[in-house]
Amino acid sequence: MTTDGCVFCRIAARELDASVVLESATVLAFLDADPVTPGHVLVVPRAHLPTLADLDEDIAAEMFLVARSVAGALRQSSLRCDGVNLFYADGEAAFQEVLHSHLHVFPRFEGDGFTIEAGWGSNPQRSELDAHAAEIRAALEGGP
Amino acid sequence: MTTDGCVFCRIAARELDASVVLESATVLAFLDADPVTPGHVLVVPRAHLPTLADLDEDIAAEMFLVARSVAGALRQSSLRCDGVNLFYADGEAAFQEVLHSHLHVFPRFEGDGFTIEAGWGSNPQRSELDAHAAEIRAALEGGP
Repeated sequence: MTTDGCVFCRIAARELDASVVLESATVLAFLDADPVTPGHVLVVPRAHLPTLADLDEDIAAEMFLVARSVAGALRQSSLRCDGVNLFYADGEAAFQEVLHSHLHVFPRFEGDGFTIEAGWGSNPQRSELDAHAAEIRAALEGGP
Repeated sequence: MTTDGCVFCRIAARELDASVVLESATVLAFLDADPVTPGHVLVVPRAHLPTLADLDEDIAAEMFLVARSVAGALRQSSLRCDGVNLFYADGEAAFQEVLHSHLHVFPRFEGDGFTIEAGWGSNPQRSELDAHAAEIRAALEGGP
């Protein structure tokens, strides 16, 4: 299950160069060619699975555990990062650019200039949070 | 295994109010009281496990799978987000504020103002990426 035009499928098939850090039967981890910081790794399934919902449970769990192992290695390696972010973008509205599922491992360093701007400080009432929780619970119960 | 001063331990013990969306024997998911967007959820272990390295594999995998379920529910719920980010901050240098492991689920909406600034565009040579990969592989092989 690959797609010719997909850059991650071509990396998984070793048709394109990549700096691989770990591979298994189902998952590949390699350096992002446009890193946010030195040592930025992507963990991808070998199969062309575009979204979070497309992953089966075993692959999803393996991707997260591989990302965690890479995070530990980044801290212990000579890169010696000070912290790590794991980041998954699901959908273009969430900044997914390559439509082949991937989990980012961002090594973080003091003063690295990485920043997030978002809508913190909206001070929602408990009643509003409870209403959102009820909506999410209803969808969880109705969902597949 | 709880810590009196930890806000997530107190939520897991139901000593503090929270708008819970899902709970299991080992994991709890609830609305972030200071959301980046409406419907922002945190997935935490019940036990006071501060870092990514402190989680055992089963708990880590369950946290990710629960976050994925919540992501699907957020898309299907009346909140109807357009995309989802999963975000894990490990260490203060990576923006971890509460030292009890937590995985963020950010519902994303077109025009929500959520932005990331980082060091993209550094154009590393393949030789530099290969060197970083070799350092990470060495740490993975030497690691626990």
